[in-house]
Amino acid sequence: MARVFKIRTKKVGLPPGTLVHVGEERTEPVRITILDYDQDQLQEFCVTSIDQCLDFKAKPSTTWMDVVGVHRPEVIEKIGDCFNIHPLVLEDILNTEQRPKMEDYDDYVFIVLRMLASVETAGDDEEIRSEQVSLIVGRSFVVSFQETEGDVFDSVRDRIRKSKGKIRRKGADYLAYALIDAIVDNYFLILEGVGEDLEALEDELVTKPTSDTSQQIHDMKRDMIFLRKSVWPLREVISRLSRGESEIFEESTAIYLRDVYDHTVQVIEAIETFRDILSGMLEIYLSSISNRMNEVMKVLTIIATIFIPLTLVAGIYGMNFEYMPELRWRWGYPAVLLFMLVAGLVMLLYFRRKGWL
Amino acid sequence: MARVFKIRTKKVGLPPGTLVHVGEERTEPVRITILDYDQDQLQEFCVTSIDQCLDFKAKPSTTWMDVVGVHRPEVIEKIGDCFNIHPLVLEDILNTEQRPKMEDYDDYVFIVLRMLASVETAGDDEEIRSEQVSLIVGRSFVVSFQETEGDVFDSVRDRIRKSKGKIRRKGADYLAYALIDAIVDNYFLILEGVGEDLEALEDELVTKPTSDTSQQIHDMKRDMIFLRKSVWPLREVISRLSRGESEIFEESTAIYLRDVYDHTVQVIEAIETFRDILSGMLEIYLSSISNRMNEVMKVLTIIATIFIPLTLVAGIYGMNFEYMPELRWRWGYPAVLLFMLVAGLVMLLYFRRKGWL
Amino acid sequence: MARVFKIRTKKVGLPPGTLVHVGEERTEPVRITILDYDQDQLQEFCVTSIDQCLDFKAKPSTTWMDVVGVHRPEVIEKIGDCFNIHPLVLEDILNTEQRPKMEDYDDYVFIVLRMLASVETAGDDEEIRSEQVSLIVGRSFVVSFQETEGDVFDSVRDRIRKSKGKIRRKGADYLAYALIDAIVDNYFLILEGVGEDLEALEDELVTKPTSDTSQQIHDMKRDMIFLRKSVWPLREVISRLSRGESEIFEESTAIYLRDVYDHTVQVIEAIETFRDILSGMLEIYLSSISNRMNEVMKVLTIIATIFIPLTLVAGIYGMNFEYMPELRWRWGYPAVLLFMLVAGLVMLLYFRRKGWL
Amino acid sequence: MARVFKIRTKKVGLPPGTLVHVGEERTEPVRITILDYDQDQLQEFCVTSIDQCLDFKAKPSTTWMDVVGVHRPEVIEKIGDCFNIHPLVLEDILNTEQRPKMEDYDDYVFIVLRMLASVETAGDDEEIRSEQVSLIVGRSFVVSFQETEGDVFDSVRDRIRKSKGKIRRKGADYLAYALIDAIVDNYFLILEGVGEDLEALEDELVTKPTSDTSQQIHDMKRDMIFLRKSVWPLREVISRLSRGESEIFEESTAIYLRDVYDHTVQVIEAIETFRDILSGMLEIYLSSISNRMNEVMKVLTIIATIFIPLTLVAGIYGMNFEYMPELRWRWGYPAVLLFMLVAGLVMLLYFRRKGWL
Amino acid sequence: MARVFKIRTKKVGLPPGTLVHVGEERTEPVRITILDYDQDQLQEFCVTSIDQCLDFKAKPSTTWMDVVGVHRPEVIEKIGDCFNIHPLVLEDILNTEQRPKMEDYDDYVFIVLRMLASVETAGDDEEIRSEQVSLIVGRSFVVSFQETEGDVFDSVRDRIRKSKGKIRRKGADYLAYALIDAIVDNYFLILEGVGEDLEALEDELVTKPTSDTSQQIHDMKRDMIFLRKSVWPLREVISRLSRGESEIFEESTAIYLRDVYDHTVQVIEAIETFRDILSGMLEIYLSSISNRMNEVMKVLTIIATIFIPLTLVAGIYGMNFEYMPELRWRWGYPAVLLFMLVAGLVMLLYFRRKGWL
Repeated sequence: MARVFKIRTKKVGLPPGTLVHVGEERTEPVRITILDYDQDQLQEFCVTSIDQCLDFKAKPSTTWMDVVGVHRPEVIEKIGDCFNIHPLVLEDILNTEQRPKMEDYDDYVFIVLRMLASVETAGDDEEIRSEQVSLIVGRSFVVSFQETEGDVFDSVRDRIRKSKGKIRRKGADYLAYALIDAIVDNYFLILEGVGEDLEALEDELVTKPTSDTSQQIHDMKRDMIFLRKSVWPLREVISRLSRGESEIFEESTAIYLRDVYDHTVQVIEAIETFRDILSGMLEIYLSSISNRMNEVMKVLTIIATIFIPLTLVAGIYGMNFEYMPELRWRWGYPAVLLFMLVAGLVMLLYFRRKGWL
Repeated sequence: MARVFKIRTKKVGLPPGTLVHVGEERTEPVRITILDYDQDQLQEFCVTSIDQCLDFKAKPSTTWMDVVGVHRPEVIEKIGDCFNIHPLVLEDILNTEQRPKMEDYDDYVFIVLRMLASVETAGDDEEIRSEQVSLIVGRSFVVSFQETEGDVFDSVRDRIRKSKGKIRRKGADYLAYALIDAIVDNYFLILEGVGEDLEALEDELVTKPTSDTSQQIHDMKRDMIFLRKSVWPLREVISRLSRGESEIFEESTAIYLRDVYDHTVQVIEAIETFRDILSGMLEIYLSSISNRMNEVMKVLTIIATIFIPLTLVAGIYGMNFEYMPELRWRWGYPAVLLFMLVAGLVMLLYFRRKGWL
Repeated sequence: MARVFKIRTKKVGLPPGTLVHVGEERTEPVRITILDYDQDQLQEFCVTSIDQCLDFKAKPSTTWMDVVGVHRPEVIEKIGDCFNIHPLVLEDILNTEQRPKMEDYDDYVFIVLRMLASVETAGDDEEIRSEQVSLIVGRSFVVSFQETEGDVFDSVRDRIRKSKGKIRRKGADYLAYALIDAIVDNYFLILEGVGEDLEALEDELVTKPTSDTSQQIHDMKRDMIFLRKSVWPLREVISRLSRGESEIFEESTAIYLRDVYDHTVQVIEAIETFRDILSGMLEIYLSSISNRMNEVMKVLTIIATIFIPLTLVAGIYGMNFEYMPELRWRWGYPAVLLFMLVAGLVMLLYFRRKGWL
Repeated sequence: MARVFKIRTKKVGLPPGTLVHVGEERTEPVRITILDYDQDQLQEFCVTSIDQCLDFKAKPSTTWMDVVGVHRPEVIEKIGDCFNIHPLVLEDILNTEQRPKMEDYDDYVFIVLRMLASVETAGDDEEIRSEQVSLIVGRSFVVSFQETEGDVFDSVRDRIRKSKGKIRRKGADYLAYALIDAIVDNYFLILEGVGEDLEALEDELVTKPTSDTSQQIHDMKRDMIFLRKSVWPLREVISRLSRGESEIFEESTAIYLRDVYDHTVQVIEAIETFRDILSGMLEIYLSSISNRMNEVMKVLTIIATIFIPLTLVAGIYGMNFEYMPELRWRWGYPAVLLFMLVAGLVMLLYFRRKGWL
Repeated sequence: MARVFKIRTKKVGLPPGTLVHVGEERTEPVRITILDYDQDQLQEFCVTSIDQCLDFKAKPSTTWMDVVGVHRPEVIEKIGDCFNIHPLVLEDILNTEQRPKMEDYDDYVFIVLRMLASVETAGDDEEIRSEQVSLIVGRSFVVSFQETEGDVFDSVRDRIRKSKGKIRRKGADYLAYALIDAIVDNYFLILEGVGEDLEALEDELVTKPTSDTSQQIHDMKRDMIFLRKSVWPLREVISRLSRGESEIFEESTAIYLRDVYDHTVQVIEAIETFRDILSGMLEIYLSSISNRMNEVMKVLTIIATIFIPLTLVAGIYGMNFEYMPELRWRWGYPAVLLFMLVAGLVMLLYFRRKGWL
């Protein structure tokens, strides 16, 4: 929950370009791996000193530098120096509360995306968390920054290693596409989970709605607000890339980006549909409360309407007047009992007529 | 219901262009028929080997190849090779969860549409299902892909066979138009059914609304969300075709496409109107619940207000005090009864005044 | 009501340009009148054979051919042949479920409008019906098609006959403007009626709202949905005409069309205002139900709170314990009665304090 | 109220340009004043014969002709002849139900505005009325038409007389700006009043909401609908003027018009804010009704739950069985009383626990 | 609260350019400080006579003149004369109810912004207030106008003094950017506070919702309406600046403005998210009221349904008929008690079955 409220205040008052990490505190070391490949060769290793990057920058082969952990400004700064990156870009990489965006700096394109993950929380619930992924896409290199170790890029790494598809025959822009595609594909996994939760919730709503059900619907609605916020600007980013706004991305890659764009639109539509369905579910919930209240009221009214008048009758013959002739009648008592029975049945018939029973 | 939640996850992590079928599992064989015609001749037969297609591709006559079943990637791939289709297109044909779209690849136009069908479900309800129809429209051929055998294209086939209208005098673009037109016409049939259900539901709402009525209204509302999702992008697709974005479609066909476009707009308007009406019906339902609750409360209040005070009176004269002079009065009992009667009638008059009776 | 659901299914599966009448079945003959005029002369007569039209088509004077009844395709086809009209246009004239539109075919402009009429229905209610009016506007002729005989065009006919205004000095485009103007003016009459109903309903809502009131509000809301659907595209049509999209309409007529356009905008605003007001009325209705329920509950609670405790007191002194000293007290009975009275009054004061009385 | 429903039907069926007054019937004479000025001289007098205007039309000095009362078509027609105004413009001046608009006729600009006034109604309420103000702005003259005598233009008249600001040094376009500015300024006065009413209403809502409060909120909401309708097109009009769409308005005046435009936007924002606040107030009102109903129900339930079971106990010991040993016990009666007391207290504690007390 | 309703009426009827202060009355003197700097030198002092400004205007170094207090028109007028500012600009500076805007006057750019502050109010509540900040940005000077002394610009002043970042190496446009950035950063602080309040409120809503909670939700919703109104036009202003609409702002500064623009979008998104969440919270509140009412009704119904029939039984055996055989049975009394117990238990079981317990 807290995530929706998190707003960076750490940076207020600092001059622009000051490198400060905004986000969850972390202590693990930053892990940097390099994958350098072209059609014929492949090199893969962990970086120990950032100066190693310089060698690869010059080479014509495609270099993918994957940086896991953005909580150490000095590391990010060194990488920035090495690749000649604008200080505002470095600032944005460190500030992990960005919305997706794309900025074109002639020599490279800076792309911010948000990656989703479904995380188990304390109360046995699941929560959708988002993490910032920044990409710097140059002519022959891609630097990707993730906050934590994840397995979303594994499929891309695997395709490069095993030379599946045409990724080895294509350049850095295609690699960037593959990474974006992996992130968007991951959205489908998250939405699949949401869809299943929704179906479970819907069954619950029909069979046995409790106030907890309504709470869960509201929680999911809020998740959708949150997802929406991540995906709408993403669509814009990919649209701009696919329209060829940057020269870094070649025409032949644009067709693949249009494909990712289609997927983003599908994600947005799914989110909007989920929202519509959740709103409908809330309405159903509220009208089911009203219905049940109606039922309760009917029971009360039927009971009261049948028994209160009869109680009056019993009360009347319980009065202590000296002169009450009925009290002495031989069949007075059974007659009253019979009258009560008949009156009760007439009432019941009346309610059945009215459709209350 | 499940349909809304279905999101393709099968393909996550695969390189683009990998041909995987996404959709319901099917086992029946793929059935391919060819209809080759021009003004003077007509050939029609089932394809046994896909290589047969090559002959027709070269011929100037219009060739319509209808593929029923897209669950076997190897078949789709062969057809793709034969007609020289981009791998991403083949991927989209196999992935049956696409939204309608149109892509122009110079030599051919790729169009994805969704066809609707009203299907009986287990619980005696009807459900609107949608199926993907993909068209590849070249200069002298149209390849259509359907998921299941359907009768929507029968009218087109019939017009070709019997040379009705000018379909035989026109080329592949007119054939594509005729197919799109057949699909859009089918929407009217579906909407006609929805309209009838709506009218039945409305009668029910006025005469005898139950919580089941509200559930049905919600179900129909969701159907509308679903229909909307299919039709809005369709309108966009046909608009682009009718504006002549592709050279495949000749100017003389554009006028017919504008006609289909008008129909799509009519479909959208009908859906929006249905949505508005359904929302209004929900409001009526909710206010009828409130009204009935009000009625119930009034009955309860009238009964309680008349009988509880009278019961007190009876209770008072049922007290066992030694010195209660009224008890010994000769006309005490009839007087009390009379008083009760009068009090009750006064109450009734009061309620009638207040308009509760 | 049924009107909203009517969707043409008769034509599904037919080749485009097939002339089929879609709409209510009618049996009366088609009536065609011709009015041919210029500044100096005027000819008016009923057409018996459609070939008569040909004479007027060639003449430079303005010819207005008014066709009442579009249920006989063969008549429409003949007229089409005579004026050389595209088959799709004829199809649209016959299909009376069109939305307003305008299509420019160089030699003539085809305009579809909807004319409203307030019709008495079985249940003593009024219902707003709409009828399709199609205009074919050529350089020296206007052909108008109506479904039924109506008096909306009478004022135009009158102005031509009596040479009022400048209609006789102007050409066919001005005549078309005058006809459109007559239709839009008619909307004001309908809206005036709606406005009066609305005011009556509002009085009812304030003085004595019943569930019937809410039903009527919903009916009017639906009428507004229906009106909206007719008028929005009309605005678009007139806007395009007034922007001079067609050469048929001269610049000097455009200024009059802009005037009609202003009227259409006024109509739309009135409809939107009515919708807003109706929504507000529904809210008032619902909150008045809640208020009344509150009142009912208060009455019940006051009665129960005052009398149930007193009944307990009476019950206590009605117990048959042998040793109940109070029963033997001389003033026991009056004391209890007094206590009851005081307790009841205290309760009443308490409720008055709480503002429930 | 009636104002929202007023729709002109008087003109239906008449040829365009026919001069008919549409609006409230009036009998007072039309009053025309002329103010002719330049930097050096000033002339001011009431017009007795419209021919007097002709003299001023030719003079290079700025002439402001203020016409109060538009209910006499023949007067408007004469003015039209004198200034050479298009008949459709004259028609619009007479038809006082126009929405704000601006039309450019090369020689002059025709502007329609709506002026607001807060009027005391019969029931001690205030109502916002609107009146049409039409301006004809030529190169050296401005003709303004008002329906009734008002004081909105007094400040402008004063500035001219006393040569305050630069109005005397500027031409007719600046005068037009000054008049528009005066009208928009007047909106602020109206809104100030609305704001005060709103604050009063809000206090009432918090302290003592009645169903009358809700009625007032709805009335104000409708006022906002009505205001909105007047102001939105006004913004459009001023925007077009300030963008220099007409040559009559010089560049140096445009900067002032942009200022008025800013004010209009402020007015619109205030109206939208009021609407949002009123919607929020309605929600508060409804939830306060629910809350109070809840309170009422709690009181009822507490009373019933405490006293009904005790009444049963009293009833049991009021039974007339011969063999009821408790009745003969020495301490039976006090024990029962004690039991009742304890049971009642336990109930009270239970409700306190539940937070109902 | 009052702020939303405050609308300037003081100026109604005055000629444009008349300098009148619109806003809260203040009495403190106007405080003017000057900071003049370039890369090498820095001068800072309080201005005693406005003529001092003239010296700095001519110098090529960047001059920042900070004016605190805009309630004395004569001071503003003098500054205007000194810097040659258009009278309408001065008027806008004095009128502190402006919405954010930007106007380009070739020699300088005039920017109006709103600065937020969270202020403690009488009732221990916090309220968000806004204050107008006007900037006049020339080629070598920036004049900033604030209503009250605040600490928002302190960080900028500090950076200039200590030569932090590149502010000393850049010109007046960068200074303007730094000031705008400081204001936008301040929004984050305010939103952080709102977010915390929201979380506290949410906890309250789940644990113990009272009608006060709903009032607070509505108050926060209104705050959001108010914030929205300030921030939306701000976004527009910064967007126009960053698109280089004014020549005063150099290309190298635009990149920084785009950064601020991103922040503004983040602020807007946060506000919209807060609004969505607050709406959701209101829905939760309302459904929790309904739920509790349901609970209350159930308790009442259970009690009434169990005890009222039993009271009837007791009443029957309290009747005084002479011939009631049961009264003489030896086990009559215990049998009735047992019957009552069993009946009560059966009822309880029935309610448990129904899920009411």
